[in-house]
Amino acid sequence: MKRRQFLTTGAAGGAVALGAAASFPAPAISQGRQQWTMVTSWPKNAPGVGVNAQRAADMIGALSGGRLTVKLYAAGELVPPFEAFDAVASGTADMLHATPYYWQGKNPVFHWFTGVPFGLTAAEFSGWIYYGGGQQLWDEAYAPFGVKPFYAGNSGVQAGGWFVREVTGLADLRGRKFRIAGLGGAVMQKMGVNVVLTPPGEIFAALQSGAVDAAEWVGPWNDLAFGLYQIAKFYYLPAFHEAGPALEISVNKQKYDALPKDLQQIVAAAAQATATTTLADFTYHNAQSLEPLVRDHGVQLREWPEEVAVEMGRATREVMAEISAANDMTRKVHASFSAALEKSRAWSRWSDLSYLNLREKALGA
Amino acid sequence: MKRRQFLTTGAAGGAVALGAAASFPAPAISQGRQQWTMVTSWPKNAPGVGVNAQRAADMIGALSGGRLTVKLYAAGELVPPFEAFDAVASGTADMLHATPYYWQGKNPVFHWFTGVPFGLTAAEFSGWIYYGGGQQLWDEAYAPFGVKPFYAGNSGVQAGGWFVREVTGLADLRGRKFRIAGLGGAVMQKMGVNVVLTPPGEIFAALQSGAVDAAEWVGPWNDLAFGLYQIAKFYYLPAFHEAGPALEISVNKQKYDALPKDLQQIVAAAAQATATTTLADFTYHNAQSLEPLVRDHGVQLREWPEEVAVEMGRATREVMAEISAANDMTRKVHASFSAALEKSRAWSRWSDLSYLNLREKALGA
Repeated sequence: MKRRQFLTTGAAGGAVALGAAASFPAPAISQGRQQWTMVTSWPKNAPGVGVNAQRAADMIGALSGGRLTVKLYAAGELVPPFEAFDAVASGTADMLHATPYYWQGKNPVFHWFTGVPFGLTAAEFSGWIYYGGGQQLWDEAYAPFGVKPFYAGNSGVQAGGWFVREVTGLADLRGRKFRIAGLGGAVMQKMGVNVVLTPPGEIFAALQSGAVDAAEWVGPWNDLAFGLYQIAKFYYLPAFHEAGPALEISVNKQKYDALPKDLQQIVAAAAQATATTTLADFTYHNAQSLEPLVRDHGVQLREWPEEVAVEMGRATREVMAEISAANDMTRKVHASFSAALEKSRAWSRWSDLSYLNLREKALGA
Repeated sequence: MKRRQFLTTGAAGGAVALGAAASFPAPAISQGRQQWTMVTSWPKNAPGVGVNAQRAADMIGALSGGRLTVKLYAAGELVPPFEAFDAVASGTADMLHATPYYWQGKNPVFHWFTGVPFGLTAAEFSGWIYYGGGQQLWDEAYAPFGVKPFYAGNSGVQAGGWFVREVTGLADLRGRKFRIAGLGGAVMQKMGVNVVLTPPGEIFAALQSGAVDAAEWVGPWNDLAFGLYQIAKFYYLPAFHEAGPALEISVNKQKYDALPKDLQQIVAAAAQATATTTLADFTYHNAQSLEPLVRDHGVQLREWPEEVAVEMGRATREVMAEISAANDMTRKVHASFSAALEKSRAWSRWSDLSYLNLREKALGA
């Protein structure tokens, strides 16, 4: 930190180099103002994800007093949404805001760093990342691509899906055309569901045309904006496959390593600070959006039927056994994640679950 | 940000002033390296609270490249633990890491910024603070003291208490000598409990001597370290009164306002980043500590009996009605908090609660 030099640019545009104090054994690094490029997988200022990506970008500029500013490109502006990782790996972009499972085609182990069916909640996931060895494994998984990941928050528990017709048991699910993403789709497929991969922008039209009978997106806040309630009135909660999908801010490692120490820490801190506001943002706005869905739009909230829950568990174990056998990294990460999950389940039963039950008993309807 | 001047101090101690570029209409602020004093209400490096206070202090130094460093004083080193707020208000210290209800003697409204019985969980609370108007109300509540508050994280759901004898119903609670803090104690008093205010360092001895029959402290992680299981084997979960008690980093407002903009943002970001790791820290280590309590120390985990839960609700409503009538600020903050709680309850029932239930159903014992 002491070894850098200051370089400020005057309002008139002239660069004024302010040399380090003579007593500093400073290497000849000319550390000027620089601008980084952030690519994202989201539309500009999309609620929750896009807004918090922008907030992180702005925060890096503010904390560094303008020495490192970040220009954000929304999905498709610089590269397509699912090419953000390649762009950072190749150095076309310096950093990204997205979610790791988007790149699972490179290595299925990336799934665990977003989250897996019946996996960790937001707080449990952050515990695994910061204290349970998750970050080290994530670093290792991204290292072959020259990318360094940071946890950047979470949507919290997502919603399970919008269904045109009610689901009263397993039989109702078989053959249904359900738009569902990621490993959740793999689990549903094992349960006889006809899984459809509709791009986000086409979900509404697919429901409307009958191309799908059901679709999951995010949660009340984002789903309300999509207007899915206009077609499908049965809203199943929660998403068994997305208890707390994680967001990432990941950077080109070579460029990150070349930053002075304080700017490195600013990038890391901005991700960590964004994690707090992102979870707060989703939690607050989902809570605000649930009531209008029910009150104004006639949405019917539904829990998954008991036999569906049990079958989801069975199919999830099958999917996880298959995917975790893919390679050495998936085996290693699955073991670490599963150990964290086992202990987290016991504590969450006695803390969050027992508190939310007790609060309802005590405060009543 | 553009208006500040740099002032660096060489290793030999000589001050080298680096003037702003001539084109800046800079005020005559001599902005050098400075050190702030952080007082805390915790022992040095106490698990969870002390460690994360130190982490925030170190982060401010790192993010600012040493322009603002923070020297942390543990409880009693500079001022006693419950005088930290006065120290910051008077300027004896620059900032503090503590929890707002410690200063409720000044204004009972401070209770809400830690949390109240059957109040918001960690994620719900952060939603209220950042998006539901909570921060503005907190600023307003602290303004008369010249103190500016920042949310700095949360322990998550705490534990309800260690009991020497089992509690099977309301009758068992009456007359019990229970060490319980804050508004939880006020609620218990209304339920006929003999509430005792034992200082943290004396809880073990009070249980051992029979001065109390029961005591609550934090959760498995901190309670394991205190050794309370050696005396009391019945562990009641959760803490009905501490669903997500908030921590604060609060600063002397005049000194904060005098900081250059980027250092102001660094202080705010450090608090926000610490919020992420603090919740992760407690969540992870509580999960790790629950098993040894049961397996190695014969602790019996217990839920509160149904009739106790209902009575807790009744007594809580009474306490909240009384305390919220104290003054204009308590009325205003109670109304805002309660509105957030109502919507949060509905969403958490369908998200966290329903997910944790579904996960247990699906994954089994």
